[in-house]
Amino acid sequence: MLKLHHHPMSAASRFVRLVLAEYGERCELVEERPWERRRDFLMLNPAATLPILIEDNGPPIVGGIVAGEYLDETRGAFQRDKRLMSEKPLERAEARRLTEWFLKKMESEVTRYLIRERVFKLEMRQEDGGGAPDASAIRAARANLKHHLRYLGWLVEARDWLAGPKLTYADMAAAAALSTLDYIGEVPWDSEPQAKDWYMRMKSRPSFRTLLTERVRGLPPSLNYAELDF
Amino acid sequence: MLKLHHHPMSAASRFVRLVLAEYGERCELVEERPWERRRDFLMLNPAATLPILIEDNGPPIVGGIVAGEYLDETRGAFQRDKRLMSEKPLERAEARRLTEWFLKKMESEVTRYLIRERVFKLEMRQEDGGGAPDASAIRAARANLKHHLRYLGWLVEARDWLAGPKLTYADMAAAAALSTLDYIGEVPWDSEPQAKDWYMRMKSRPSFRTLLTERVRGLPPSLNYAELDF
Repeated sequence: MLKLHHHPMSAASRFVRLVLAEYGERCELVEERPWERRRDFLMLNPAATLPILIEDNGPPIVGGIVAGEYLDETRGAFQRDKRLMSEKPLERAEARRLTEWFLKKMESEVTRYLIRERVFKLEMRQEDGGGAPDASAIRAARANLKHHLRYLGWLVEARDWLAGPKLTYADMAAAAALSTLDYIGEVPWDSEPQAKDWYMRMKSRPSFRTLLTERVRGLPPSLNYAELDF
Repeated sequence: MLKLHHHPMSAASRFVRLVLAEYGERCELVEERPWERRRDFLMLNPAATLPILIEDNGPPIVGGIVAGEYLDETRGAFQRDKRLMSEKPLERAEARRLTEWFLKKMESEVTRYLIRERVFKLEMRQEDGGGAPDASAIRAARANLKHHLRYLGWLVEARDWLAGPKLTYADMAAAAALSTLDYIGEVPWDSEPQAKDWYMRMKSRPSFRTLLTERVRGLPPSLNYAELDF
């Protein structure tokens, strides 16, 4: 049995959930608030980050990208044409580059700030860093988001999916990150029609359904969050 | 033929060079100053980061971790007991967690700041961000380094090598990052004897030789940088 320590608004957690859903894998979810630094959570991952995947009470598999590789080796490799990674090393390298782009680079320039300031701070106690959102962090993140969205639009204009002709981890990573931002209405979709078209395709996948029906306590989603045609 | 766009003081570049040397692969080196944002360099990698690996004029393989995966698939898989990754998915996950730890987490908390402030700024023009080092960034990075070194010491006390009983990418990643910091004399080895012992083992490997003889223009290495017994 698979167990995932996650937060509903963590992009890397959503990435793993999407991959699991694409492969039809069921998974027990444990919601974690990393900023509370729960002792048992730190024992699993001293870096205090999410997600953490555990299979059959085995050792922790730490981080979205690492869990993705594990799932490719233990699940994807047996999925034939439903596999979310190519079998060719160079194509795998391109999918990995973009998975890192959306889960690490965009995270550190956009996602982390908007989600922290607008979502996590609502749940945090004062002593854990809660309080009023930092307007300058939000402003900087919004400016950076435009560049990432433009890059995504450019990629899907040149290719069917982000990393090439087939759906891969790169699409899952970008959709996971953007779906957290879309929940809080932060994605200026109309400025990038190609990116919007790609996201509509992603949202329509059955693997996306659970994410779209999920709600964060005390924070209703943006108007179009769950709309397949937005 | 393999070609690597790198900087001699980039930890992720050194990681790939160590892996290549372990596998006895020759590689043409192209030195790159990412802050100059050379047009052809940005065409290879719009994120403007190093390293970038290219095989036989093929598409760019971007980033240390992505290049490491590529080399595992195209070289490591045929190395039998010299392979730097386990064949077991859970052990691979642990090696990947620590590779990420030393090339991403430690990079963003320690390495990036010390190398930028003490090395790159010497090479940068004023308009690219050159100038006097930022003392508070250096102070914060030094404080963080102690924690990373303690964690490394704790790992090698519990295990022969960082990720378990065998040498893996995790060791290459940690040694690559620490070797850049050791060059500028920033590693307080005497505070962590276990970590020091591990680093002596790493330094003695033939794959390390080239790194130890390399010199950055205008910046001589610390006294013990090239000493195997320090």
